[in-house]
Amino acid sequence: MRIIIIGFGVIGRGLAKVLYKKREFLRKNYGDFNVVAIADRSGAIIGEDIDLKRAIEVKEKSGKIINYPGIEKSSLEVIKDVDADVVVEVTPSNLDTGEPARTHIIESFKHGKHVVTANKGPLALYFKELMETAKRYNKIFKFEASVGGAMPIINLAKETLAGNKIISIRGILNGTTNYILTKMEEGLDFETVLKEAKELGIAETNPYQDISGLDTAAKIVILANAIMGLNKTIKDVKVRGIEKITPEALFLANKRGYTIKLIGEIVNGYLIVEPKLIPINSPLNVKGTLNVAMFETDLAKEVVVVGRGAGAEETASAILSDLISIKKMIENES
Amino acid sequence: MRIIIIGFGVIGRGLAKVLYKKREFLRKNYGDFNVVAIADRSGAIIGEDIDLKRAIEVKEKSGKIINYPGIEKSSLEVIKDVDADVVVEVTPSNLDTGEPARTHIIESFKHGKHVVTANKGPLALYFKELMETAKRYNKIFKFEASVGGAMPIINLAKETLAGNKIISIRGILNGTTNYILTKMEEGLDFETVLKEAKELGIAETNPYQDISGLDTAAKIVILANAIMGLNKTIKDVKVRGIEKITPEALFLANKRGYTIKLIGEIVNGYLIVEPKLIPINSPLNVKGTLNVAMFETDLAKEVVVVGRGAGAEETASAILSDLISIKKMIENES
Repeated sequence: MRIIIIGFGVIGRGLAKVLYKKREFLRKNYGDFNVVAIADRSGAIIGEDIDLKRAIEVKEKSGKIINYPGIEKSSLEVIKDVDADVVVEVTPSNLDTGEPARTHIIESFKHGKHVVTANKGPLALYFKELMETAKRYNKIFKFEASVGGAMPIINLAKETLAGNKIISIRGILNGTTNYILTKMEEGLDFETVLKEAKELGIAETNPYQDISGLDTAAKIVILANAIMGLNKTIKDVKVRGIEKITPEALFLANKRGYTIKLIGEIVNGYLIVEPKLIPINSPLNVKGTLNVAMFETDLAKEVVVVGRGAGAEETASAILSDLISIKKMIENES
Repeated sequence: MRIIIIGFGVIGRGLAKVLYKKREFLRKNYGDFNVVAIADRSGAIIGEDIDLKRAIEVKEKSGKIINYPGIEKSSLEVIKDVDADVVVEVTPSNLDTGEPARTHIIESFKHGKHVVTANKGPLALYFKELMETAKRYNKIFKFEASVGGAMPIINLAKETLAGNKIISIRGILNGTTNYILTKMEEGLDFETVLKEAKELGIAETNPYQDISGLDTAAKIVILANAIMGLNKTIKDVKVRGIEKITPEALFLANKRGYTIKLIGEIVNGYLIVEPKLIPINSPLNVKGTLNVAMFETDLAKEVVVVGRGAGAEETASAILSDLISIKKMIENES
């Protein structure tokens, strides 16, 4: 399968590392996954089977893949001109405009490419348009990595729970805030924990989207649309973040057998993100940076899944499972 | 899709109930699932679209589907003679011989039918033969319901975690023993709990397979073969049951922050079932009849899934997801 990678930040390089390190394993079990183009803001590398090890080194040393050496070609031109089966869209997420990912994805479909993305922005803002465009051009669109990182969630609900009516979904979908709350439960104050989380690379330099609940909101929009067939955007979510949670609140909750978690939930068509009291022995009480999701269904009843919501390899794991799924589908067709 | 149901006990009827109750939902989302034959030991019903409600009523009232009215035809004859896409094999599990399910499954492949089963016996004893036969006749073979009931496990590992190397699997795969241990943790003794579990229908009249660990052993054989590509049979499992666990042992474990669970595990190619000390706050510490599985993988790292391991609707949920998956595959091909 011929793959274009658009965006070569932590996630793009994480995927490249996995495709490189697991090349033989993948070939043996699923066949070839060849990266035929990589684009970042500096330009693009194009080739029949790009040397991923070198591409990663060049990017990490110089910040620009054009030093591979590549050519001055924009991401859109790569999407249009390069012969490939799949575009992996992993540019930075923008929750205000969804761009440039939205345009990249739509142009990919128009130019006959399937798409895999980890990008929450376009999915939370333009889900319906993207799905309709994929359908119009008869292309596959997969985005397991956009919610919950390596924690199986979208494909789990759509495939392993196929046939079930999903009644509700609730979960912890942001590892940064879960880490902060877990540490605050140990008695540290918000500012101290946040500083530590930034130093450890768990929180971004600007952690506003995590702490305000906006990141979780984008994710439950994706779940509501993809799994429950709703037509929501991020404006439909009632959002409250964890800014006002104190170690004292957690201490008091603990004393009564509860903890406090930033929960995203979809119940009766309503999308809500807010800190909630959760019983200590609830399956939703997972610690540190872990993510968790609980599905309530008509046949399987409750199903809970726990996994790592972030990390380069973990996100690559979700992207890879989507790529393998597409590979199986297109081989089955031909 | 045309379906034959072989075996019309609790699981077969559970599937029929779900297909009947969710007929419109399924039609709208996935298309038609028509049952064209049902066989039990008394005979068979054959028809273009069997009235499942009536079939269930007749079986539950008289114990014999031949009173539908049906005809005197054996399961094997039905498999050979009736035109269908898929055979659902749900006769009682036999862990000594794997029969009659093994023959039913093999004959289904030979007669051009895909197979879905919930039957542990043939899978734990003749996995390789069954997979090879399916391959030889180019048929699909799915068995999500054989392990963990409604808890997603086999398809989760093979699809949502595709691309990962599964390093180890450990879990609680038997709801009856988990219920007994949970109740004993509350101070009740083994015999009292077992009696109660039988009365509630949680334990079978002869719960030997559950308590001895044999049921769990069969399930980890299936996981080892299906997910990790090993070639094991039930004879390869080191098995110890929960017969010797006392409320006192649980009390002492609790005092030190542990509980005792019957854990099945596959680590470094070894298959072991035994009661193990598990930290109270471990994700493996799930209560009551719940099942849990923890995968250790190279990319996604740890993934945990919790769900209901038994129950007619829950098992039907897993069978249904396999049927939907086959429907999508054969429609994609044609």
